[in-house]
Amino acid sequence: MHKLVLIRHGESTWNLENRFTGWTDVDLTPTGVSQALSAGRLLAAEGWAFDLAFTSVLRRAVHTLWHVLDAMDCSWLPVLKDWRLNERHYGALQGLNKADMARQYGAEQVLLWRRSYDTPPPALQADDARSERADRRYAALAAGSVPLTECLKDTVARVLPFWNDAMAPAIRSGRRVLVAAHGNSIRALVKYLDGVSESDIVGLNIPNGIPLVYELDADLQPIRHYYLGDAQAAAQAAAAVAAQGSA
Amino acid sequence: MHKLVLIRHGESTWNLENRFTGWTDVDLTPTGVSQALSAGRLLAAEGWAFDLAFTSVLRRAVHTLWHVLDAMDCSWLPVLKDWRLNERHYGALQGLNKADMARQYGAEQVLLWRRSYDTPPPALQADDARSERADRRYAALAAGSVPLTECLKDTVARVLPFWNDAMAPAIRSGRRVLVAAHGNSIRALVKYLDGVSESDIVGLNIPNGIPLVYELDADLQPIRHYYLGDAQAAAQAAAAVAAQGSA
Repeated sequence: MHKLVLIRHGESTWNLENRFTGWTDVDLTPTGVSQALSAGRLLAAEGWAFDLAFTSVLRRAVHTLWHVLDAMDCSWLPVLKDWRLNERHYGALQGLNKADMARQYGAEQVLLWRRSYDTPPPALQADDARSERADRRYAALAAGSVPLTECLKDTVARVLPFWNDAMAPAIRSGRRVLVAAHGNSIRALVKYLDGVSESDIVGLNIPNGIPLVYELDADLQPIRHYYLGDAQAAAQAAAAVAAQGSA
Repeated sequence: MHKLVLIRHGESTWNLENRFTGWTDVDLTPTGVSQALSAGRLLAAEGWAFDLAFTSVLRRAVHTLWHVLDAMDCSWLPVLKDWRLNERHYGALQGLNKADMARQYGAEQVLLWRRSYDTPPPALQADDARSERADRRYAALAAGSVPLTECLKDTVARVLPFWNDAMAPAIRSGRRVLVAAHGNSIRALVKYLDGVSESDIVGLNIPNGIPLVYELDADLQPIRHYYLGDAQAAAQAAAAVAAQGSA
């Protein structure tokens, strides 16, 4: 049996301000740092050990991983960063306040943008100052393939190749893998692993900074999954994520 | 022309306590953190950019790199950690105070242990609590090949294959490389790049936390090298390193 641990980054400055973040590269808040350190201490206290870690190229996930590794006394662990683990791109909503948008467009429209499987938010213009097309961390992507918006279906379409190319082979080879990523890149993985339907995935929310364990069989089929630590706290944190789009 | 930037980790707790460190995995002091951040800010202010970073598996170098990357706003940069960039193993001296050893054995003996090219300090016993043989970060090394002591010649013998296998190909392919490492792994690189003799390398000291730039031609032959920032401060810091073995 294999065990895979997924962790959504700790609270970011724009989580705190209730803004759509997407690929905007905001940092952790002090609360976010302390969530990451607590997660690392919990993993260490329960005797978890890893051989390899994956993260996105966004600092809130990278820093979360660094704090977890520090708390586990293994900052030496190999880490692979890949844009395919990035948060879902939030298009023209990036930077806007979720509650403001709910007041302006209605909670239903915001829920659709946040949670619809195949309806992306309005796209950024390629020349918008918020676009990441000129960001050199994405320079290896084919011209024009840096997204200007994404629905969850689009996120799944780039997370799955990363699962197949990098994560699954590492897990199959017996390496114990830790992933520090984002609400929607983790939802993409969960949808795939558990075969969650396009309609049911709408109601699934991933709390910040709480390790989510997947036990997988030899074919990488999930046996069960659970959050580490206080189950009630994890459920409350997930409910708080769900409520972010209220006016 | 290629440019390679080498940086010795910031001040560590055992630099501050004037103890032989070697492979002991001590952390940075607050001064060391601030040296690393200053180095990153200096690199950013001078417009440096990197495509790839290498570091050791010791936290004082890993953390130095993390702080440099943060200050340069590129925590997303790919990082490869390898034990072959570790500090020279200091054998049975690890943990002992340099000035105490000078009082006990004489400054000349300490200089020999610190700077002789081919005389290693007394070896650790394999079952010494200080030995790293059971440390899982070295589990991939062949049994018995985790060192129990090293002279600089031994360090050169493991740094050079890393240069040839990983660093030189990356630089040749046009990638701009940053290395966060240690006094003696950097001395090993400098000895090789500049063809420093076994006797002259004794007098070469690398200060903590100051970026050292090597300009290399297409064949990776050095054209020139220089420290960034205040040249006098770099020289004073190197002289302070040289004086650490005084009673």
